[in-house]
Amino acid sequence: MHSNLWIEERYKDFYGMRYKVENVLYSKKTEFQTVDVVETKGHGKMLLNDGLVMVTERDEIAYHDMIAHVPLFVHPNPKNVLVIGGGDGGTAREVLRHSSVEKCTMVEIDGAVCEACMEFIPQTAEVLKGHPKLDLIIGDGVKFVQEFQATNEKFDVIIIDSTDPIGPAAPLFGPEFYTNVNKCLADNGIVVSQGESPWFEAEIQKSMLGVLNDIFKNIFIYNFSNLTYPGGLWSFTFATKGDIHPINDFRKEAVAASGLEFSYYNEGLHQAAFYLPTFMKKNLEGLIQNP
Amino acid sequence: MHSNLWIEERYKDFYGMRYKVENVLYSKKTEFQTVDVVETKGHGKMLLNDGLVMVTERDEIAYHDMIAHVPLFVHPNPKNVLVIGGGDGGTAREVLRHSSVEKCTMVEIDGAVCEACMEFIPQTAEVLKGHPKLDLIIGDGVKFVQEFQATNEKFDVIIIDSTDPIGPAAPLFGPEFYTNVNKCLADNGIVVSQGESPWFEAEIQKSMLGVLNDIFKNIFIYNFSNLTYPGGLWSFTFATKGDIHPINDFRKEAVAASGLEFSYYNEGLHQAAFYLPTFMKKNLEGLIQNP
Repeated sequence: MHSNLWIEERYKDFYGMRYKVENVLYSKKTEFQTVDVVETKGHGKMLLNDGLVMVTERDEIAYHDMIAHVPLFVHPNPKNVLVIGGGDGGTAREVLRHSSVEKCTMVEIDGAVCEACMEFIPQTAEVLKGHPKLDLIIGDGVKFVQEFQATNEKFDVIIIDSTDPIGPAAPLFGPEFYTNVNKCLADNGIVVSQGESPWFEAEIQKSMLGVLNDIFKNIFIYNFSNLTYPGGLWSFTFATKGDIHPINDFRKEAVAASGLEFSYYNEGLHQAAFYLPTFMKKNLEGLIQNP
Repeated sequence: MHSNLWIEERYKDFYGMRYKVENVLYSKKTEFQTVDVVETKGHGKMLLNDGLVMVTERDEIAYHDMIAHVPLFVHPNPKNVLVIGGGDGGTAREVLRHSSVEKCTMVEIDGAVCEACMEFIPQTAEVLKGHPKLDLIIGDGVKFVQEFQATNEKFDVIIIDSTDPIGPAAPLFGPEFYTNVNKCLADNGIVVSQGESPWFEAEIQKSMLGVLNDIFKNIFIYNFSNLTYPGGLWSFTFATKGDIHPINDFRKEAVAASGLEFSYYNEGLHQAAFYLPTFMKKNLEGLIQNP
């Protein structure tokens, strides 16, 4: 244990979030980024990519519940799911709890993230060590969707579990990528993406939703709240190829019927998440179809 | 402007939130606490009591919208409103926007908070400089409700806009105080109180709701999200003397009819705020009547 070691995530030049660190468990400079795992005093084990907090044991369930279960309980019968990114494994873990899912393909660009999490954060990454329905590919998600469209397979749900639009994740926010994502999607498919901070990154949200609007039919955005992303409140975008609606087509009864237990997600919260603060509604006017 | 000045709020011994400070505007050790106002680079002017962030210009509207408009749009005709605490003025400001309100009594224990905010944060405190319907009392809220019950007057809505249950606000979390609050409340009255962090202060929430359950008829809790309270997600408790219900009796049409504009609050969010994450529902089981 270190006596007075802290790690700080800086947001721009005016805000910092600091966590007391008990132990530094992993640190590697990869081809794509710096990957760190530390053990914190208050938030359990923590993964950082380029110094930004990605996942902590204390609150990862909020993010993973909301990125996975919202689309999977809206799609009528999700069998084939693609996760781009999500190297900590938490999203795949939640996807694979759905009994309808026959195959989950996960494409993570940086094998070191999976490696670090499998060793030090099994809470999220245990599933990556081997699951009969999981196809884990270490590779570039951008190239994957480009090449995949030549096959006959389509995905019912595609989840873009990316970092911020800087570094290796930048192309995951552009129109070329989403055009290819759309081509990989089944007719009633849904794409959910990590959607940044409504308080701090309103401009990124607008630009992302603009891209989605040019390619997909119906666009929504929904919120959740965790402990470790700047500002707490965070968004996911929800884009559809057909007319499926995240509230009207929500398979509410399926939640209880699934027998699954959730620490964060539930039926009421699923719907509530689509009701936005006024400043956010105004900022995104014309770009979303939220109620 | 200072070259490298930061202010940090520490949560326990494991988490810190740091803000870049441009100028220190006010600092006073009062009988009750230390009161500081600083100008930050990213969050505008900021009020701190005993080093804890109370209000910033950037996000205060989330807190003040949700503490004031939720009860005022549920009560059928709120005329007489009491605010305990709320020295920055933001809660009184929002209460006084309701045309039904004939009188808002505000009881703040520490005059220095009002003084500092009137001088440096007029965004919230302008109203304290004088409003025909505002009765601003610098005094002890605990004593106020003890003495007030001898009068014939009753309040339709009482708002406890307090700091954390340490220092001068500690008695505002106890049964004696709420017994007296109940006696000051009209038959269909509502009491809304600052309700702490669902992620970090689950035990305080349980104890607070336990106190409310012994005294009031129906108890609810609702959430909002701001930038400057640890964890972002934060709660208000909603307790009733009669059978009034925060969703079923919500005067939804009155929101648009009021002609008021809100940066955070809206009809959808009012209702969504009562749908809680599962961990919170489980922790508060038996203590709340949320849907």
